[in-house]
Amino acid sequence: MSPTPARNRPIGRVALVVKNSTAAANAAADLENHLRQKGLDVVVDEPQVDETCPPDRSRVHPLPSEVDLVVVLGGDGTLLYAARTFGRQGIPLLGVNLGGLGFLTETSLENLYPMLEKVLAGDFVTESRMMLAAEVHRNGRPVTHHHVLNDVVINKGALARILTFSVKVDDTNLTWYRADGLILSTPTGSTAYNLAAGGPIVYPTHESIALTPICPFTLSNRPLILPQTAVIEIGLEPGATDALLTSDGQVSCPLLPEDRVVIRRAEHSIVLIKNPYKNYFDILRTKLGWG
Amino acid sequence: MSPTPARNRPIGRVALVVKNSTAAANAAADLENHLRQKGLDVVVDEPQVDETCPPDRSRVHPLPSEVDLVVVLGGDGTLLYAARTFGRQGIPLLGVNLGGLGFLTETSLENLYPMLEKVLAGDFVTESRMMLAAEVHRNGRPVTHHHVLNDVVINKGALARILTFSVKVDDTNLTWYRADGLILSTPTGSTAYNLAAGGPIVYPTHESIALTPICPFTLSNRPLILPQTAVIEIGLEPGATDALLTSDGQVSCPLLPEDRVVIRRAEHSIVLIKNPYKNYFDILRTKLGWG
Amino acid sequence: MSPTPARNRPIGRVALVVKNSTAAANAAADLENHLRQKGLDVVVDEPQVDETCPPDRSRVHPLPSEVDLVVVLGGDGTLLYAARTFGRQGIPLLGVNLGGLGFLTETSLENLYPMLEKVLAGDFVTESRMMLAAEVHRNGRPVTHHHVLNDVVINKGALARILTFSVKVDDTNLTWYRADGLILSTPTGSTAYNLAAGGPIVYPTHESIALTPICPFTLSNRPLILPQTAVIEIGLEPGATDALLTSDGQVSCPLLPEDRVVIRRAEHSIVLIKNPYKNYFDILRTKLGWG
Amino acid sequence: MSPTPARNRPIGRVALVVKNSTAAANAAADLENHLRQKGLDVVVDEPQVDETCPPDRSRVHPLPSEVDLVVVLGGDGTLLYAARTFGRQGIPLLGVNLGGLGFLTETSLENLYPMLEKVLAGDFVTESRMMLAAEVHRNGRPVTHHHVLNDVVINKGALARILTFSVKVDDTNLTWYRADGLILSTPTGSTAYNLAAGGPIVYPTHESIALTPICPFTLSNRPLILPQTAVIEIGLEPGATDALLTSDGQVSCPLLPEDRVVIRRAEHSIVLIKNPYKNYFDILRTKLGWG
Repeated sequence: MSPTPARNRPIGRVALVVKNSTAAANAAADLENHLRQKGLDVVVDEPQVDETCPPDRSRVHPLPSEVDLVVVLGGDGTLLYAARTFGRQGIPLLGVNLGGLGFLTETSLENLYPMLEKVLAGDFVTESRMMLAAEVHRNGRPVTHHHVLNDVVINKGALARILTFSVKVDDTNLTWYRADGLILSTPTGSTAYNLAAGGPIVYPTHESIALTPICPFTLSNRPLILPQTAVIEIGLEPGATDALLTSDGQVSCPLLPEDRVVIRRAEHSIVLIKNPYKNYFDILRTKLGWG
Repeated sequence: MSPTPARNRPIGRVALVVKNSTAAANAAADLENHLRQKGLDVVVDEPQVDETCPPDRSRVHPLPSEVDLVVVLGGDGTLLYAARTFGRQGIPLLGVNLGGLGFLTETSLENLYPMLEKVLAGDFVTESRMMLAAEVHRNGRPVTHHHVLNDVVINKGALARILTFSVKVDDTNLTWYRADGLILSTPTGSTAYNLAAGGPIVYPTHESIALTPICPFTLSNRPLILPQTAVIEIGLEPGATDALLTSDGQVSCPLLPEDRVVIRRAEHSIVLIKNPYKNYFDILRTKLGWG
Repeated sequence: MSPTPARNRPIGRVALVVKNSTAAANAAADLENHLRQKGLDVVVDEPQVDETCPPDRSRVHPLPSEVDLVVVLGGDGTLLYAARTFGRQGIPLLGVNLGGLGFLTETSLENLYPMLEKVLAGDFVTESRMMLAAEVHRNGRPVTHHHVLNDVVINKGALARILTFSVKVDDTNLTWYRADGLILSTPTGSTAYNLAAGGPIVYPTHESIALTPICPFTLSNRPLILPQTAVIEIGLEPGATDALLTSDGQVSCPLLPEDRVVIRRAEHSIVLIKNPYKNYFDILRTKLGWG
Repeated sequence: MSPTPARNRPIGRVALVVKNSTAAANAAADLENHLRQKGLDVVVDEPQVDETCPPDRSRVHPLPSEVDLVVVLGGDGTLLYAARTFGRQGIPLLGVNLGGLGFLTETSLENLYPMLEKVLAGDFVTESRMMLAAEVHRNGRPVTHHHVLNDVVINKGALARILTFSVKVDDTNLTWYRADGLILSTPTGSTAYNLAAGGPIVYPTHESIALTPICPFTLSNRPLILPQTAVIEIGLEPGATDALLTSDGQVSCPLLPEDRVVIRRAEHSIVLIKNPYKNYFDILRTKLGWG
């Protein structure tokens, strides 16, 4: 369970992903100055509240492969956005929280500059975190494609009381569920919605997919941990209306009754820069109020 | 825990509440003939799918106090509708299921006629079940009023990921919740949505109000059993959008950010005619697959 | 849910129940001096670690009805002992915690003396809390009798993996359980072992009996809230060995295979002196780490 | 998730592990005749109820490496015994249930002979299942060593109410628990005690270790899925008495206060012969009563 030493590529261009708040904007301005004074190139991005569905591929991000580091200033929510948007390129992400410790934003603002020194000097370790890819199939062809770091949720909309859907794993029938919804979670996402819905904590680098029904009608429909290689196909019952696909709790797309959602491990993992002074269990104890 | 002997009023007029299905319509036609041949007056009602919100008081039901018996042909869902619509007048309800045993529709179609003989002869026992009344207060005045036999749910709509709301009990702060929603359940409703959300089974005549958060963010926010006298006031956080009030899983009304929902025991209970051959524990074992 | 004003009997004799710890002994010595200087009669009791099973009725407590107040110095565990031992006589109990807030020991050491002034002046409110009585029947006759404020637990001993037992409520079969054990809890005990085993929080004055199986084999064997009038009879399967009856987590008695355990509301409730500055929800939020 | 084709070694000698019941003994007698008529060598073993603690290595099993197949006649409990006793040698196990379908004994008695034809002809597939190894360290040296297919449980004995223990994973502090006990489960064991205690179902070939506390005092102490490589070290609090180590729910050893228990993936996996007509999800749906 030891982290991976990072690739040893010199850092020339840094992207800042900044939460939409005054505190984050101020911290970003300081950081931008600091980095420019060091002769680094800086680009700034702010998460878009109104992400379109399906994701608008034409939205231009000035972040091609020449970005060498992404610094996230915000909370876990901002990092989820950054991971979905830039995480696929293998660029290391450094998560900085502006308030309390996050599961993903392990570095506090006061430790940012000492930490950054080390990162710029190449003295850091990273950890790979698997992502999930979700595809909606409509009339026989994929209509949208999402990557998530935490979870994909199929849930009922405002008016539905309960959803009925069938699940196949690797082309084998698992079962059908009657529930408020279904969460497919990465290990990273296991401490988010999955935990609130009764799922277990999964060690973040232990690759697997947690399938957790939300308020299932059948009480023995317990959370299920599947191999990371599993291909999960979810079908809504014919005539089902008012279902949604939600990615990382941030982007929701309406589903049509005949849609099929296929979820599998994404091809690429994100690369998180680790705080050398915090291990996962420290974070768990703090965030969950243990002992 | 013994049932109440019924009032001994002769039965002259019977209302049939009939599920919208061919099987139910056929059973209702037979039953209507049968009752008319016995010289009884019969009125037939079919649940309206598109119940308005707030409930439309002008919708005329030909069911004033002169109805002496309500026979429900359908399932628990149909009986919930009947209880909300006619239950307040103290008229005994006889629930007949057309398929599997229901928690509320204890009598099977094949036992309907023998059972009916007894009921018409005044030879039956009944059980009172408390209901809840929910009022939405907007700009200082009540804008809608619901009665439910199972539960009142405040939940998030399609787009919200999580709701934040504060709860007061008898004017004392309980806590604030971050959750998908909150269920306020009668004992009767305890085996419905409450159970799926992690709440306990409450013996149906043990009057109390179960307050069960749905997927709460704080893991120690466990279900809470309150006295039946409790007055529960729920406030949404300022700026909250996309919340709904749902009654018995059948009628949903949008809530506005500043709304306050007040929930208490309804003044009137419904009166269920008991199947003398089934006690509550029999039903529990069958429905939950015990033993 | 407002507390009961206490009986207005002048306090002449005070019993101190003192946890077996240096801090408690010191606090007790100070308190004893203080009370004697006020001209009050004081008796001191220390919980016996090795309570016998069945309880030894011959153990002499110098606490007949002429004791007017019991002050408990310790934690909730000490108060449970005091409630079992002296609570049946309707004498008000004042619970003083020596460390963190307790569910039952609401008064801190630093508030003890101001609180005591009020209590001695008759200026206090009390709250009744129901207790449970458990009787073990062996060969047709009762062999032991326990009163508890929190819970009665039937559980497996060291060697058994799982117990099988049948439960009747008011002479009606409920079901049989395969589980590690079964908890019968008062509302007061609902936040103790019951909560750890998945049971709900029950408002402390809402009289009822929670029946919560411990790690049941059948996943739908969920906690059940019964009326306070319920008489619960538990039978072990023939041949069952290695089962125990545990009272308030403090006294354990071995059960024999043919034993039947009968549990019902005790005739007498205990009388707790309330801290006027803390309501139940304050305590709940603090103890469970809410909000 | 496709099963592994078995090694293609001709079968000359078969061991029968037979549950201690008349039905199993009868089935074994028939099977023994059948196999001998085919010219195969047969040895018969019956699980020992009184397994010693620590396991008695001197107990002679006539089952050296020349046994080519183990047929288990009984239920999952008998197969657990067979796996602990013979599973380490890589000999394929065929589990035959004498009553209902088992998670491990997938073949019914009526399908035994057709199935056996195929197995003897080398026409079968197998599945590897990881086991756990548990070592008790006392005064600095290992005193006992257990292999399990389902789970290792550290739990409280008859008299203790709650245990306090610390857990390290790979030499890093995880946390300390106050609980009735702790379950360390393989994927195979995830549907056994782990599930009753609130743990998730883990796909049986997805190697991992589930750490599930039993009735933890801290409600956020949720089940944790660890990598199969994790080395888990459990220490009891100084002075703790009355704790036990239980292997597969079948063998219990008392622990002393200063003992440390080290649990890790066992070196060897067992080899199960798969019923070609049943996949894992079929078994799950049947055993848990889904849909």
